Amino acid sequence: MSIEITSTQNPQVKELLRLRKRSARERERRFLIDGLRDLQRAVASGVEIEAIYFCPDQVEPDSISGLGPGIRVSPSILEKITYRDNAEGFVAVAHMRTHELAQLTISENPLILVAASIEKPGNLGAMLRTADAAGVDALLVSKPAVDLYNPNVIRSSTGTVFSVPLAVAEGSAIRDWLDERGVCGIAALPGARESLYAADLRGPIAFFLGREQDGLSAEWQAAASVHLAIPMRGLADSLNVSATAAILTYEAVRQRGGG
Amino acid sequence: MSIEITSTQNPQVKELLRLRKRSARERERRFLIDGLRDLQRAVASGVEIEAIYFCPDQVEPDSISGLGPGIRVSPSILEKITYRDNAEGFVAVAHMRTHELAQLTISENPLILVAASIEKPGNLGAMLRTADAAGVDALLVSKPAVDLYNPNVIRSSTGTVFSVPLAVAEGSAIRDWLDERGVCGIAALPGARESLYAADLRGPIAFFLGREQDGLSAEWQAAASVHLAIPMRGLADSLNVSATAAILTYEAVRQRGGG
Repeated sequence: MSIEITSTQNPQVKELLRLRKRSARERERRFLIDGLRDLQRAVASGVEIEAIYFCPDQVEPDSISGLGPGIRVSPSILEKITYRDNAEGFVAVAHMRTHELAQLTISENPLILVAASIEKPGNLGAMLRTADAAGVDALLVSKPAVDLYNPNVIRSSTGTVFSVPLAVAEGSAIRDWLDERGVCGIAALPGARESLYAADLRGPIAFFLGREQDGLSAEWQAAASVHLAIPMRGLADSLNVSATAAILTYEAVRQRGGG
Repeated sequence: MSIEITSTQNPQVKELLRLRKRSARERERRFLIDGLRDLQRAVASGVEIEAIYFCPDQVEPDSISGLGPGIRVSPSILEKITYRDNAEGFVAVAHMRTHELAQLTISENPLILVAASIEKPGNLGAMLRTADAAGVDALLVSKPAVDLYNPNVIRSSTGTVFSVPLAVAEGSAIRDWLDERGVCGIAALPGARESLYAADLRGPIAFFLGREQDGLSAEWQAAASVHLAIPMRGLADSLNVSATAAILTYEAVRQRGGG
């Protein structure tokens, strides 16, 4: 088969380049996937793939066949559409899903993570991997939120952004939603009297995880029924937020017999 | 007091700019600190501060007085010597310490982390915060290592890079050192039969943590006497390496009664 697109002036290519911007992604409800593992996980998670622009010299067509409709492009086109150094020989265009609280289905005894104003794509990505591995019921992201379809979120989540049940909503809507379902909010705070390891994490719970720079806001702290302290023996009074998420989530997994 | 340096051609300024490069840092055994919290933690940890170049308009002189000898510079000098957008009104020059295995003193029953080929400054920084908070005996970094004095390591560690007992050495030297001290190496591997939560972590142990891209090398896997699995229920088969470090380290803290 011959190359189908060779001109960088091709309207499809221009459309695709626009999707590197968050505003265009949100307007068009489409986004790009740059990595093969991420693409495979998107497909496994039911994400609809519109097209895979690939360069036959740079990717084994068999590796992407079956993942979506392929369109052959020249090396110069691929170079133009590739994100930074993420070149894996293709770029896929996919359709966004919606992430409404109302769409979530949770278990009788849920374990939930709340990303309250997480700002760094890498931290959200690491939290998504933890959420995926621990099998949490949902990860709730408060607005204003990091763009879930930011290439650094997709990559640092290793594609688990497609598989973890996710909702994005205003903080107040998230707190109401949790209250209505009888989910107990838990905040890890440096000054808390109760140790994480003295707490019972076997019931319906949500861990609130705050901003990198200044921690959990007063609003989220007040909304947490339980304040817990992670033992801290060093010079610093806080951990990286994705490390905190991992410690809390896996202590709940342990207590719930997940080990 | 008047501004002492106003010319960007000043030899001290040129010297300082050179220290933005790893090669110059290693040759001169000096490095730069850009943040106030990081500087305070460096001083609290006994790092020797050679000079603090500060702009009196941009930092309260009281906040840095007592941390090291101050040199007043003009705003244009400060802008030139500041790393990216880290401007906090000053840049400090400090002396590197050495990080030899032979310098470490460990407890009778040590808890140790080994960063085996960690490549991302942000991951090493998060691991340092975890190591600090958990009060580990040491963090051992295998060569070729991320530069500990990289500004992103300093910043993402929130200055704990100065307080955590650290050594940098060849992997084989680290493994010998651990063996000689009767420290049991532990690797978290996806396929391991034993669950983390079934393991006894109360003895002298070292957790081996591998490269972001491809995990722990065969050499490190073979050197680990114990292979453990972190329960994984999702689509992916691995966690972010600093999340893994946090889960392992804090499970050891819990078992050792640290909670």
